[in-house]
Amino acid sequence: MSQVRVHNFSISLDGFGTGEGQALETPFGHAGERLHEWLIGTQFFHAGDQLAGGTLGADNAFAAQHNPGIGAEIMGAGKFGPPGWQDDPDWKGWWGPNPPYHTPTFVLTHRPRPSIEMEGGTTFHFLDATPTETLAQVREVIGDADIRIGGGATVVRDFLAEGLVDYMHVAVVPIVLGRGVRLWDGLESLEDTYNIEPVTTSSGTTHLTFTKKR
Amino acid sequence: MSQVRVHNFSISLDGFGTGEGQALETPFGHAGERLHEWLIGTQFFHAGDQLAGGTLGADNAFAAQHNPGIGAEIMGAGKFGPPGWQDDPDWKGWWGPNPPYHTPTFVLTHRPRPSIEMEGGTTFHFLDATPTETLAQVREVIGDADIRIGGGATVVRDFLAEGLVDYMHVAVVPIVLGRGVRLWDGLESLEDTYNIEPVTTSSGTTHLTFTKKR
Repeated sequence: MSQVRVHNFSISLDGFGTGEGQALETPFGHAGERLHEWLIGTQFFHAGDQLAGGTLGADNAFAAQHNPGIGAEIMGAGKFGPPGWQDDPDWKGWWGPNPPYHTPTFVLTHRPRPSIEMEGGTTFHFLDATPTETLAQVREVIGDADIRIGGGATVVRDFLAEGLVDYMHVAVVPIVLGRGVRLWDGLESLEDTYNIEPVTTSSGTTHLTFTKKR
Repeated sequence: MSQVRVHNFSISLDGFGTGEGQALETPFGHAGERLHEWLIGTQFFHAGDQLAGGTLGADNAFAAQHNPGIGAEIMGAGKFGPPGWQDDPDWKGWWGPNPPYHTPTFVLTHRPRPSIEMEGGTTFHFLDATPTETLAQVREVIGDADIRIGGGATVVRDFLAEGLVDYMHVAVVPIVLGRGVRLWDGLESLEDTYNIEPVTTSSGTTHLTFTKKR
């Protein structure tokens, strides 16, 4: 069976995966880019563009696990666009004509629309389904490849709460956001199901890996 | 000026400093001893009793900073006793005749009572005062020595929110408690005031040090 994985999911010390006030100009609300500075600095992050450089250290080692083996991404409506994107028939995501997914990408929304084929192998599909139903439908499309749960926090939490995540990498950034969307709510005793290993890097990030107990 | 310090303050991944359901038999509620296993294993923790042993590694290095230079502890009512201890005139804390403080120890409560002199240098004083007023009163008693804020989470948070803490050591334990008393609430942008450094140890604990920016 293919694995369900979470990668590079960044939260603040107080557990927020995004800030308050998400909008077109502020995809992460008042958090800005602060949750992702560790990632933006890596060579992995720059691989797709014209910028040379980026670090090759421990942060990059974590970041670069994002793609290998992945056959699809599942994301929430709030990752695909700002509040209200469902009212804009031309909205095709934040990422321009060639999104960084390069696989079928399933957007969970209560208002599905027809699929959109983008450049570079990304096709957006829109589903209104439970986590279990979603995985079943995705596996019908992609077969045995692994599936990445791309966020936001609510979607990761929903898949965790149903015991559907096999591996999760969370990056804890040393900032206190104070408000936003929490990752950990409703996940009491997650340590009973996962081996949890933390490691810190020189950027001040604490990388947590959750590996499902067998 | 003496420093105000927090040491060995343990929280879960989701930021709870204590669980739900604090009572005489469960001082940390449903968290039990899980927040403090890293500490209980250290040589520092065993120094005061007849048990030999305990680890001398990185966890102990953090733990052992608890006492040097400290002239007083300030704690909340919830650390001194279970809910309702104010109705028991004989309650003298959880710790028996010789508490592990060995300094004047100031308990914040809306129902102060006369001071209690214990063995080993601990005297409990009871105050109904704001954080700033409390520090002023403590400094009158102890002079220039450092002051430890002993918790619980609400008390640490109150002193942080007023900018009164100079140094804080938080131990993040890889468990998800789900409910209890949160440390981080109301502390948005704490990183503007503190240099925050995380380091992990082989126990799976992430030690965070907060050092006030000058």
